[in-house]
Amino acid sequence: MKIANGDREVCVASPAAKAPSVGDEKEREADAFVPPLNFAMVDNGVFRSGFPHSANFSFLKSLGLRSVIYLCPEPYPEENEEFLKENGIRLFQFGMDGSQEHFVKIPEHAIREALKVVLDVRNHPLLIHCKRGKHRTGCLVGCVRRLQKWCLTSIFDEYQRFAAAKARVSDQRFIELFDISSVEHLPMSFSCSKRIV
Amino acid sequence: MKIANGDREVCVASPAAKAPSVGDEKEREADAFVPPLNFAMVDNGVFRSGFPHSANFSFLKSLGLRSVIYLCPEPYPEENEEFLKENGIRLFQFGMDGSQEHFVKIPEHAIREALKVVLDVRNHPLLIHCKRGKHRTGCLVGCVRRLQKWCLTSIFDEYQRFAAAKARVSDQRFIELFDISSVEHLPMSFSCSKRIV
Repeated sequence: MKIANGDREVCVASPAAKAPSVGDEKEREADAFVPPLNFAMVDNGVFRSGFPHSANFSFLKSLGLRSVIYLCPEPYPEENEEFLKENGIRLFQFGMDGSQEHFVKIPEHAIREALKVVLDVRNHPLLIHCKRGKHRTGCLVGCVRRLQKWCLTSIFDEYQRFAAAKARVSDQRFIELFDISSVEHLPMSFSCSKRIV
Repeated sequence: MKIANGDREVCVASPAAKAPSVGDEKEREADAFVPPLNFAMVDNGVFRSGFPHSANFSFLKSLGLRSVIYLCPEPYPEENEEFLKENGIRLFQFGMDGSQEHFVKIPEHAIREALKVVLDVRNHPLLIHCKRGKHRTGCLVGCVRRLQKWCLTSIFDEYQRFAAAKARVSDQRFIELFDISSVEHLPMSFSCSKRIV
């Protein structure tokens, strides 16, 4: 690496060129990707997670995201907005209240609008997130699985894997009752329904 | 639907043509896809699960699999072998003992060979499975994440999401100690490292 120092050029060791040392392992760990809490791949070009913080930005950058679906009513933090702007990522916000522990009313209309964004491949790769990646995200992903014709047993199994001890009967009932007929006409080009070439 | 009955044609109601009835919902549920236990997408073209049974075959068929990595030492059941044969799916078996509850010795060599199969995109779409999709599958996926440079916290978080109450310290220690240097040269064309066009 060369650093211009007036009319001289000072050569300093590049981190990539230096000899291996005992500190390399620690350095490598510090360079590691940190996916957001509860991160997972839903399908080809669709990811889910809890709220992303600055420590997760380099990982998110590696996904080459085009869009983010944010399911909370609170304004997006400035540093997250800045990250999206810098990387040309579009934000779709569908505010749903998630503060109560039980019997939270998931708004069917908001889930329906969010589903349209998820199903439009022009928005992929796409990250769906709320605060913890359990309830609101779990409901939206559950509705995606309904459209993919998964049986309820498998949909709930996946929901519970993320919600764990915080699983809500009301969320599962919402997924079960969700009327998919109004979005069934939308194209589904997910890997779960076709071979990847 | 027409059924030839001697020189007469007898018309009977086609299931697809009949008027909607109260039984339609039940019929639709019976036609639903049933993913195997603990099914999930690891990355573009790579899936993980517990042992697939005949109820899961129509779902697995929809994935358009090219290969299956089977991590148990027991012979593959006849009906599963038949399913693979009918669908042109190649089986890679790496037998690892999974009978003991604790301190199971995961064979590093077998994981290394299995990793080579996972990393070769010519084998995709590919399903990794053992019996429950927790320990052996969790170790292999953990090593994939090491190669993808995930931090150990996120790797263990994912491992524990599938293993839940059955999580093993020995599996996590195996993932932590696994020497990735011998497979680091292999190409990684996963979605987590490039944009999907």
